[in-house]
Amino acid sequence: MSNAILTLGLNTVWTVLTASMVFFMEGGFALLEAGFIRQKNQVSIIMKVLVDLIFGVLAFFVVGFGLMFGKDAHGLIGLSGFALSGHLSHLPATIPHAAYWLFQAAFAVAAVSIVSGAVAERMNFKAYLLYVIAMTAVIYPISGHWVWGQNGWLARLGMEDFAGSTVIHAMAGFSALVGAQMVGARIGRFDAKGRETAFAPSNLPLAAIGTFVLWFGWFGFNAGSTLNAEATDIAPIAMNTMLASVAGGGSAMLYTLFRHDRADIGATINGVLAGLVSITAGCAFVGPWAALLIGAASGVLMIAGTNWLERLRIDDPVGAVPVHGVCGMFGTLMVGLFAIKGGLFTTGHWHLLLAQFVGTVVVSLWGISMTFVTLKAIGLLVPLRVSQAEEEMGLDLAHHGTAASSVENPVRLLPIASSAKPLHASIRGESLLGRSTER
Amino acid sequence: MSNAILTLGLNTVWTVLTASMVFFMEGGFALLEAGFIRQKNQVSIIMKVLVDLIFGVLAFFVVGFGLMFGKDAHGLIGLSGFALSGHLSHLPATIPHAAYWLFQAAFAVAAVSIVSGAVAERMNFKAYLLYVIAMTAVIYPISGHWVWGQNGWLARLGMEDFAGSTVIHAMAGFSALVGAQMVGARIGRFDAKGRETAFAPSNLPLAAIGTFVLWFGWFGFNAGSTLNAEATDIAPIAMNTMLASVAGGGSAMLYTLFRHDRADIGATINGVLAGLVSITAGCAFVGPWAALLIGAASGVLMIAGTNWLERLRIDDPVGAVPVHGVCGMFGTLMVGLFAIKGGLFTTGHWHLLLAQFVGTVVVSLWGISMTFVTLKAIGLLVPLRVSQAEEEMGLDLAHHGTAASSVENPVRLLPIASSAKPLHASIRGESLLGRSTER
Amino acid sequence: MSNAILTLGLNTVWTVLTASMVFFMEGGFALLEAGFIRQKNQVSIIMKVLVDLIFGVLAFFVVGFGLMFGKDAHGLIGLSGFALSGHLSHLPATIPHAAYWLFQAAFAVAAVSIVSGAVAERMNFKAYLLYVIAMTAVIYPISGHWVWGQNGWLARLGMEDFAGSTVIHAMAGFSALVGAQMVGARIGRFDAKGRETAFAPSNLPLAAIGTFVLWFGWFGFNAGSTLNAEATDIAPIAMNTMLASVAGGGSAMLYTLFRHDRADIGATINGVLAGLVSITAGCAFVGPWAALLIGAASGVLMIAGTNWLERLRIDDPVGAVPVHGVCGMFGTLMVGLFAIKGGLFTTGHWHLLLAQFVGTVVVSLWGISMTFVTLKAIGLLVPLRVSQAEEEMGLDLAHHGTAASSVENPVRLLPIASSAKPLHASIRGESLLGRSTER
Repeated sequence: MSNAILTLGLNTVWTVLTASMVFFMEGGFALLEAGFIRQKNQVSIIMKVLVDLIFGVLAFFVVGFGLMFGKDAHGLIGLSGFALSGHLSHLPATIPHAAYWLFQAAFAVAAVSIVSGAVAERMNFKAYLLYVIAMTAVIYPISGHWVWGQNGWLARLGMEDFAGSTVIHAMAGFSALVGAQMVGARIGRFDAKGRETAFAPSNLPLAAIGTFVLWFGWFGFNAGSTLNAEATDIAPIAMNTMLASVAGGGSAMLYTLFRHDRADIGATINGVLAGLVSITAGCAFVGPWAALLIGAASGVLMIAGTNWLERLRIDDPVGAVPVHGVCGMFGTLMVGLFAIKGGLFTTGHWHLLLAQFVGTVVVSLWGISMTFVTLKAIGLLVPLRVSQAEEEMGLDLAHHGTAASSVENPVRLLPIASSAKPLHASIRGESLLGRSTER
Repeated sequence: MSNAILTLGLNTVWTVLTASMVFFMEGGFALLEAGFIRQKNQVSIIMKVLVDLIFGVLAFFVVGFGLMFGKDAHGLIGLSGFALSGHLSHLPATIPHAAYWLFQAAFAVAAVSIVSGAVAERMNFKAYLLYVIAMTAVIYPISGHWVWGQNGWLARLGMEDFAGSTVIHAMAGFSALVGAQMVGARIGRFDAKGRETAFAPSNLPLAAIGTFVLWFGWFGFNAGSTLNAEATDIAPIAMNTMLASVAGGGSAMLYTLFRHDRADIGATINGVLAGLVSITAGCAFVGPWAALLIGAASGVLMIAGTNWLERLRIDDPVGAVPVHGVCGMFGTLMVGLFAIKGGLFTTGHWHLLLAQFVGTVVVSLWGISMTFVTLKAIGLLVPLRVSQAEEEMGLDLAHHGTAASSVENPVRLLPIASSAKPLHASIRGESLLGRSTER
Repeated sequence: MSNAILTLGLNTVWTVLTASMVFFMEGGFALLEAGFIRQKNQVSIIMKVLVDLIFGVLAFFVVGFGLMFGKDAHGLIGLSGFALSGHLSHLPATIPHAAYWLFQAAFAVAAVSIVSGAVAERMNFKAYLLYVIAMTAVIYPISGHWVWGQNGWLARLGMEDFAGSTVIHAMAGFSALVGAQMVGARIGRFDAKGRETAFAPSNLPLAAIGTFVLWFGWFGFNAGSTLNAEATDIAPIAMNTMLASVAGGGSAMLYTLFRHDRADIGATINGVLAGLVSITAGCAFVGPWAALLIGAASGVLMIAGTNWLERLRIDDPVGAVPVHGVCGMFGTLMVGLFAIKGGLFTTGHWHLLLAQFVGTVVVSLWGISMTFVTLKAIGLLVPLRVSQAEEEMGLDLAHHGTAASSVENPVRLLPIASSAKPLHASIRGESLLGRSTER
């Protein structure tokens, strides 16, 4: 086997495996969101994530990939490679085009999934479906081209966003802000007198499953972004990813522990995600101590962002805006401070920080304005929001015709008294893990 | 490090990682099925999938692998390699025998897991255990030898089944049909007057977890089937897998949305799986547009198959037959139409289509008849079906002595009124995600 | 691309991918434990696993890694490499230091997670947090150095523990024994008259998810321990891992089936884990039949260990001690019997068995004594155990201010009668999987 064939093989399996991990993150989004919202809308949010995958992949295949990674026109847009056809010789030769597409399709789907959480429990299914197509076919690819496409104008300006703190997270996180504002708060979340009622999460173990899947997938997300298995920074990227995530979870957990004398699981989970989002831009550019600092700061910033959003009376049921929007922008800026090459603190140069600032602001504004225009246009075709009756019934029954959970009879009550009569002879006193005996 | 050692190392890690992903799919089967059926049988179905793994791996190690991949006798059966011993020099030299075995064991287990869903909620545990041994020791390996073994007669005929639309899915899916028919419908599913009562799925988020795990694992299933990391088709295989799955989910979702004005989650999930099953034969042989077509058609075909089964009054609680049987056969045939080499539509030649037709029909009939004979034989030893009292109580309590879920006290009711008294001083007003305050 | 760069790239991606799988196992621990314990403490146990990750990674980064893998002092302790700085040239050159750290950090976190289960449902959160830091900063790294560090004295003695049956599982499993004993049994578990009341597991499908995640991750745990993708034993390691796990699950399942006439899911799950733990030391040293034997024995041994613990009236809610402690020690000893190089049964030499015996006893005693001292010290700062009122309320509400599950209205009751009036026009009779129609 020649070295060239071996190299291509190694890069291909690296990219295919990490792309699979990134696609798996959709399961993470679905379960995290389903666990955080009310039970009557769990099916609805899972269906929205399935729409992200289904229509996101299709739209990105046919249109989005070409606009993002096609042959450049004026640094603004790509214009080849639709359905992977036409001129694509400018793509990196390290991996096959199909592998490149696969990884990028997983990223496009991740972007739109960020929005799904912020509009959960009240956005109309058909309106969401149309938005997914617009986001993955046009909105994300165009700003993505500016940073990651051939000759994109923000990249030429010097902006560095390794795995997408801005391209994906800030863009989608601030799009989510617009979405949450435009569809409005859930009924009962804020009342006329300005009082706030929170809805308890329906299922925190479900949210935890989602978190662990996202965390696992993020190693593929960041380290896989090398698209090259011989890149010497794969190990530091993975280490920084781990360090920032635990620092983010740690600072958020300790904040709630010291401030309120209890460790809050929602804050800890979103702190971990905040750390992951904020290191995504710089994981390949900063050292481990910087990763810890960036992660720790993002955990607290996420909490501040959550409070800020609530003061604005914007209803973001899962915290998509503080996690992805605020920390995506923050992480992008931190590259300008801590990057080993060109960071202000490390080299004294301002150029990179300015490029990061311009880049993250421009891309976020792009997401905000395009989402605003798109949702306005969709609103002319179908209602953006479900009716009050549907919302109160829950979207699962109203829009999807099913409840998330159904029990045919009540579950067993515990503890089993020692004197309880077993239901069946075979279960008398022998369960390894549910025994009830006298001795 | 020499090139030969590097190549072997790369192929080994590729195979071990993708085999791990395929084994992980068992978790997907277990959770998907547990979520689709009634809660009182959740433990039962998880136990059956554990039986698939435990007794499937053991039987395949001792007997099945040799019959399937051992030294060929007359194109009909393998006769070496039992417990990985004896003559195995005909196996590909690209990976160690242990890695080859590991991947194939994961496939054998996947095959039998397909059957578990169709007989869920009423098949006797011991009967199922015996069936698992028969399937993984004998039934699957023998027909598998015909297609994938050394010198198998269907392979010699020209049949092409890259990752097992027929070898695994159609064979097991039609075996599942026989199983579902022989154990009979669940009590109350169809009444004497021909009326049908459906049982709502117990836990759709659980089913969704299973779906995402299966989807993730399928990249290992299809791309890993190269068993060779330098295969140039790894990336197209993964891309086709993704495209067909979203097309299948998309067509099924849109069908329910347009026909019934709501997007059905069960149809969408099974549509995704239908797309995955149907592209499994051809993922290495067709182009991306063909993958989209095959996937989209399979989503609708799965719905037709589901309706067909219900008209036959055969009770398949999770849709194993339409997903794996019908779409496995369909996907195998589509290779005969769309294969870049030898497809009827692409080359005008009929030969491949005929070989595909003969192959998928023969292997499906093999599954049908062997499952029939095996279950008849098992029925002489132990009852195939639980008693009516056990079925009504639920198999979890009746056969496994435990309920799937137990609550020690009622869960908290929502929404928390703004005036609600907190249960404990520390939770007053501070939960980031469950706050209840006045401002 | 030169061979040296290719080799480094391949080893790096192998280590990063398997390390990600090992980190993902934390999700497995969290969900397995949450499913086995009572619902009122599910959030609490998930938070403890998040503490394992957050504070475990931080403590291991700053202190533990240096003590374990730093430059050796007298075979007893490492003294460089804190925060990956300083003298580390003795580490294997096959992978970057950051990759080496990542994999070892995942192992350190796995070790402490084992303890979390044994003290579940009554240990004070802050006390647990301090214990995690002590374990990952000091306790685990020091005994780990003896076996895996540069020039460690147990390694020099000839002890062989490939992936940590002793270094991780026995050490942590017997530490868990001390923890469970020192915090005491849960209220109501054993009464004054010596009667025992078991608490039924809250959610077995959740425990099953955890099991499948752990099982998947264990392939990374064992095969990844090569830290070298060209190691020729990767495939046999993975095969042995699979064989031992199914043998362990199989023997435990069959034991409950024949002894009590029902297959117990808790025993089966813990049997699988027992098989995995017991093969962890020898996966690279024994043949497949030995792996089957070791696994099968461990399944029964785990049951004996569970019964032994209950006779001692020690309350280990998830079986951490019998699974990790007992089977970790057992698996280490089995290397002394079955190792192809040096095993008593295979070569007739006693030396290895003696080294294994000394090693596993010393390391277990280290875990026991250090955990005792550490918990005594922590007990001077904060209570080890929650108050009776908090325990009865549940730690989720008492310490974390939230319930694991919240429903806004009752779930749908089943079966849906054929005459049931649908709640919404769109759901009349069309659900693919929840249909209710007359024909």
